[in-house]
Amino acid sequence: MIRATTAALAAALLAVPALAYEPLVEKQVFEAESFTTQGGSEIAGLRLGWEAYGTLNEARDNVILITHYFSGNSHAAGRYTEDGARGYWDSIIGSGKPIDTDRFYVVSMDTPVNLGAHLPDVTTTGPATTNPATGEPWGMDFPILTIRDFVETQRMLLDSLGVEKLHAVMGASMGALQAYEWGAAYPGRVGRVIPVIGSGWADGDLIAWLNIWGAPIRLDPNWNGGDYYGGEPPLAGLAEALKIVTLHAQSAEWSNGVFGRAWADDGADPAASFDNLYRIEAVLDGAGMGRAKTSDANHFLYLAKANQLFYAGHGDSLYAGLLAIDAPVLVIHTDEDLVFPGNAVRETASIIRSDGTPVTVVELEGTRGHLDGVLGIAQAGAAIRAFLEN
Amino acid sequence: MIRATTAALAAALLAVPALAYEPLVEKQVFEAESFTTQGGSEIAGLRLGWEAYGTLNEARDNVILITHYFSGNSHAAGRYTEDGARGYWDSIIGSGKPIDTDRFYVVSMDTPVNLGAHLPDVTTTGPATTNPATGEPWGMDFPILTIRDFVETQRMLLDSLGVEKLHAVMGASMGALQAYEWGAAYPGRVGRVIPVIGSGWADGDLIAWLNIWGAPIRLDPNWNGGDYYGGEPPLAGLAEALKIVTLHAQSAEWSNGVFGRAWADDGADPAASFDNLYRIEAVLDGAGMGRAKTSDANHFLYLAKANQLFYAGHGDSLYAGLLAIDAPVLVIHTDEDLVFPGNAVRETASIIRSDGTPVTVVELEGTRGHLDGVLGIAQAGAAIRAFLEN
Repeated sequence: MIRATTAALAAALLAVPALAYEPLVEKQVFEAESFTTQGGSEIAGLRLGWEAYGTLNEARDNVILITHYFSGNSHAAGRYTEDGARGYWDSIIGSGKPIDTDRFYVVSMDTPVNLGAHLPDVTTTGPATTNPATGEPWGMDFPILTIRDFVETQRMLLDSLGVEKLHAVMGASMGALQAYEWGAAYPGRVGRVIPVIGSGWADGDLIAWLNIWGAPIRLDPNWNGGDYYGGEPPLAGLAEALKIVTLHAQSAEWSNGVFGRAWADDGADPAASFDNLYRIEAVLDGAGMGRAKTSDANHFLYLAKANQLFYAGHGDSLYAGLLAIDAPVLVIHTDEDLVFPGNAVRETASIIRSDGTPVTVVELEGTRGHLDGVLGIAQAGAAIRAFLEN
Repeated sequence: MIRATTAALAAALLAVPALAYEPLVEKQVFEAESFTTQGGSEIAGLRLGWEAYGTLNEARDNVILITHYFSGNSHAAGRYTEDGARGYWDSIIGSGKPIDTDRFYVVSMDTPVNLGAHLPDVTTTGPATTNPATGEPWGMDFPILTIRDFVETQRMLLDSLGVEKLHAVMGASMGALQAYEWGAAYPGRVGRVIPVIGSGWADGDLIAWLNIWGAPIRLDPNWNGGDYYGGEPPLAGLAEALKIVTLHAQSAEWSNGVFGRAWADDGADPAASFDNLYRIEAVLDGAGMGRAKTSDANHFLYLAKANQLFYAGHGDSLYAGLLAIDAPVLVIHTDEDLVFPGNAVRETASIIRSDGTPVTVVELEGTRGHLDGVLGIAQAGAAIRAFLEN
């Protein structure tokens, strides 16, 4: 007993310094006087948050760019404060981890039209921010952006850091689209591409579902055609939209395995009243409303549009951008994914591979569907580490 | 050439009488002074439409009951008028067809809270119809119904026809739930059960999606807590709800194969404006709004609730009702089904089979997902014919 206690104490003592020595992450802001979109519109006063882990080497060639998913932001790893939340891929990014910050300088940036526009740690430019020309929020007058525009904001940040070529670019879901786009748009500036749970274009099915995702926002009378700043935001519609995303990004193994037919409240039989819910309904309601408060409804619609518009390269043909990718590609996905199904991801891999580009495909196991690309990424840790070495 | 023309003419002449001799279907109305729901509420003045194909024999033992799906009604076969639309399963119901009306008397009935409450050929009782106690539409004061309540209305109709035992009961989707429920609730009154594209209970995933389906209605300010009769109905919300159902009941093979990334209007690039849609979006919008005009939003919510509440038998345990089924079961489904996935259907089949009840499973091929249970049912024609013979 004494031994066990001593061992536990020693482990605790060892653990504390390990945490204490980990440097805190500093969120920074990248500013550009002007940004011209691919569609030809100009955005004055672009401001986007970013953060980095590790140290930029003298040759500036040890950079790995992490691009974030639809509802995500730059916070991929580490913590802003001692008791703050760890970034979403903290399991693979850090000292000694597969994306080893002892070796790599890992950069991650908030996209424009970031969903979490009202989160204190997010800095973004979009409908919710002020149009310098009017002094009012842009609303739906903000230009439509594409995934390529997101890539351009990252390129500008990297240019400002003097980084010519990325060791790798990696992202999940919408982040995977940005990773493909980097490989297609800048084949000479990307050493490796790691798209996770994403395919090379938005197909008809994804376009349709993205329309469904956004519909509740447009139905909420508070949305008011996007003009709600200064009034009541369309929280109910946004919460419903986020509910759909939440369910779509999960799997039946989750909804059935964790919740099944359980009631939200014992004694409140769903058969007795429309107010009595099943637990899965209450959980989705809570998740939707919880995230709605820090999200922006117009930003949601702009992100949905950017995803619908995506095909790698945005060129003259659907496949040209994928064929333009020259860097080796490590595709990570799961067959339980409802958003980017396995066959779409495998088809993407085949097209990239068809002209001789090396492509490795790693399949994740799990019960969380699309989300396993975030929650279960550590499974691919060894493959990522090896891919980054080569 | 003359021969070919003669042959074509002969074929045309042969075709015309075949159509002309087919008896037209007469829609009838079943009325009951009172109906007590499983929840203990009383509905005065129940009125439900029904129709039949074939002739009831003297022994009254040649009856096959067809139970309809979520957005369906009693019109399973034949035509009401010479140029009217054929019923949804006309390919398998009729003279000489797998469900042979030369031999069987095929009965089909509108459910209460039928979605198509405002279709001229549908007669139903629900929130949109008048509560005799108040002289006003019931609205959300209408009692919550279950799939078992639907079965009870059918039992009352069959009782009125002097039918003691069904040769078979068959239905697709929500109709499959009714078929399971018939087998569970009245094992002595059902000779055969044919559930198509449906499983033995609503699992957590289906419960969640049914919540998502109904959300747009609740968001539409015209819904007004269900009190919209006499005012503007919540058409926009109902149309969005029907869009989700439409997409969910299809498959990616449809949305990608038929539409892909095509634009709704040539020259109206979706990248240029939020008003410019992809074709799949415009098709879903059209389908949703087209059906919304003849549907009722409250009825939609009552149907969603009935589906959420379903587990065969509605008894003390999830499996008891399925184990109560004694009649042979022919399960027809497709693995491309997003609403009732293949594993849920196969699990249902295994549970029914576990106590010795004969179960046959037939899998449909197709590119339309859940809808193949309606559109592709003819594939199972031989299996259905043989099953009905035994």
